[in-house]
Amino acid sequence: MAVNLKPPRNEDLHPVAGVELGFAEAGIRKANRRDLMLMRFAPGTRIAGVFTQNSFAAAPVQMCRQHLAARAELRGLVVNAGNANCGTGEAGLRAARVTCEAAAKLVGCTPEEILPFSTGVILEPLPVERIEAALPDCVASLGADCWADAATAIMTTDTVPKGASVQSTIDGRTVTVTGIAKGVGMLQPNMATMLAFVATDAAVSRPVLDRLVREVADASFNRVTVDGDTSTNDSFVLIATGRAAGAEITSAESAAYSALRDAVVAVAAPLAQAIARDGEGATKFITVRVEGGRDEAEVLRVARSIANSPLVKTAFFASDPNLGRLLMAIGNAGVTDLDTAGVNLWLGDVQVIDHGERAASYREEDGARVMQPEEIIVRVVLGRGNASTAVWTCDYSYDYVKINAEYRT
Amino acid sequence: MAVNLKPPRNEDLHPVAGVELGFAEAGIRKANRRDLMLMRFAPGTRIAGVFTQNSFAAAPVQMCRQHLAARAELRGLVVNAGNANCGTGEAGLRAARVTCEAAAKLVGCTPEEILPFSTGVILEPLPVERIEAALPDCVASLGADCWADAATAIMTTDTVPKGASVQSTIDGRTVTVTGIAKGVGMLQPNMATMLAFVATDAAVSRPVLDRLVREVADASFNRVTVDGDTSTNDSFVLIATGRAAGAEITSAESAAYSALRDAVVAVAAPLAQAIARDGEGATKFITVRVEGGRDEAEVLRVARSIANSPLVKTAFFASDPNLGRLLMAIGNAGVTDLDTAGVNLWLGDVQVIDHGERAASYREEDGARVMQPEEIIVRVVLGRGNASTAVWTCDYSYDYVKINAEYRT
Repeated sequence: MAVNLKPPRNEDLHPVAGVELGFAEAGIRKANRRDLMLMRFAPGTRIAGVFTQNSFAAAPVQMCRQHLAARAELRGLVVNAGNANCGTGEAGLRAARVTCEAAAKLVGCTPEEILPFSTGVILEPLPVERIEAALPDCVASLGADCWADAATAIMTTDTVPKGASVQSTIDGRTVTVTGIAKGVGMLQPNMATMLAFVATDAAVSRPVLDRLVREVADASFNRVTVDGDTSTNDSFVLIATGRAAGAEITSAESAAYSALRDAVVAVAAPLAQAIARDGEGATKFITVRVEGGRDEAEVLRVARSIANSPLVKTAFFASDPNLGRLLMAIGNAGVTDLDTAGVNLWLGDVQVIDHGERAASYREEDGARVMQPEEIIVRVVLGRGNASTAVWTCDYSYDYVKINAEYRT
Repeated sequence: MAVNLKPPRNEDLHPVAGVELGFAEAGIRKANRRDLMLMRFAPGTRIAGVFTQNSFAAAPVQMCRQHLAARAELRGLVVNAGNANCGTGEAGLRAARVTCEAAAKLVGCTPEEILPFSTGVILEPLPVERIEAALPDCVASLGADCWADAATAIMTTDTVPKGASVQSTIDGRTVTVTGIAKGVGMLQPNMATMLAFVATDAAVSRPVLDRLVREVADASFNRVTVDGDTSTNDSFVLIATGRAAGAEITSAESAAYSALRDAVVAVAAPLAQAIARDGEGATKFITVRVEGGRDEAEVLRVARSIANSPLVKTAFFASDPNLGRLLMAIGNAGVTDLDTAGVNLWLGDVQVIDHGERAASYREEDGARVMQPEEIIVRVVLGRGNASTAVWTCDYSYDYVKINAEYRT
């Protein structure tokens, strides 16, 4: 069902010096499927992360925050699919701790140098003994050139594994950025979690890495939405092994920083788009671009109001140019003092709204034509400033209901 | 499909002295169905209203606001179904004006003494000549005892007409309150509009009526949600003809005011609930009660976060006790400094979350049992204050997608 999204092959994803990946079948929720993934990092690796804003942050999210605050360098991370380890109280924190301890023994480091991640059903105890039992299999399969295989081990309702990779020249030297992700959203995601792991062999100081991960998240995962719900486990971490030959990047004002940011966005943005392309039940991939706003906050509000509207999304599913719903969604965004007479809207190359009302040139058959393709661009111009943004989303189909109604069966 | 909702009969809805209703088939969108309704009021009738917060307020909403501001007393209102007259610019305002003029001639008043209402597709020109042509049929059918018939003339995707009526004794005299509504939401409604018209023969001063309509809206229509979208045409008006024998209510602090408010809420609350019971594709009626919040705003945010979550709603449709989704929705409500360890949650009589985690007493079979009925109560206790509220909603089914994907076909 995913919209124009192909699974990556291992050879499509460049190895990153200092990163090895292994996976196993732990039987956490279902038997005979990969559901456990281990990443091992070379000494000196730095990591920065952004995590869910949900008040019920899962046990592994709480532990990640602690370990990132306590340690300058980390040596590994463990991801399990099938169980979110959330709403599990003290027992959940113990289970996350046991996971780190078991991985640390195998990697040869302290538990605080391991980051734990979980994705799956909320409010059920994590069977951590299955993770302990399967971690040796992960270690046995560790390799540098198996990013695509690793991407399959973190999937839940994903229909396609998600990976992206670029190489870029920074200060005359080749830098690699490779990442994998799972799920269907982040700040506004869908099911039980969006997780993304992006690694580079560039050397970056920790304060600069902390800034970089936020800038990249704002340009990628924070721009995707499936249904406006935010998971308890969302996590995006950026790993810098420092194994490339260049000098360490210690300033966010440097040319090297800009070049690295562009390279990381070139991996993170397609991963974020892949999440919408593989949105539950998706049949269309929709880009909502909003321009002419007073500030970033208001263009984002308008874009999300459109992208999250069930009425807009069902109209896209039906290829029905019921375009009044777009007007409704703009008006719903809570933009203060919006002069509707200044609003223009295009669907693909067809102008639908002209200064707040139906465009005189608009013909129903043109609307029907531009609603047909699998990839659709909605462009709104608010006419009150220079801020702009874009959000990626998908449509709402029967299969959205089916997948979510039957998720646990 | 509506959940435990029966159509009212004319004899179920008490006439209100000073109010007559008529209806007709104007063929605004589809032939051979009632789609036009006229209410005529006796001289001296006062009206107060609350309207959509959407920036793209429809032409009739703009005109209602003008007429209510300009006139102390009104003589009639016209409602058409099938077209929302929204996003229609100056032509839309002219069409609303023509509607008022045509009705005024027939009622024998000025156009400013008529309120216009429209519901249906947005962004399409209103064929006002069909309204003009059919208004004489409305006048010919005017009667006091046909509230249920009138309720059928304002429906769009409603499957059941909605009406409610009570009689109450205020200051020793009988006061009647009768109302009809259509649609599936108000501040957060669904399709193309929620409209509600509630009339009483009580005598109420206009300032007190203005306050009463807001208090009643907060206790009824502002507590219902289907999918979080807000229409461009939402309107709730409260009509007071003053034909009952009692003294005029001129103070909101009086016992008579309290008694009248209770009577109006006794009509408006079941009308609001009827909107959720008839929510598009609804198979279940869900009450979300949130207690123990610091203030009204935060308990309402939590209740709406649960009631609007597509994941929660699809789980209810499936009768699947995937209760982590409730936890997710609470955590998503943006309650500042929420101590999750203070949160408790019951589904019906079963405690699911105990101090922020899965209740030790919780058994999956108990969860499955309480998810089965057509009427379900979710109760959340935040444990940080004394504010409480309740919101009514429905589940998300395949038919929700079907109805909205095929709405215009």
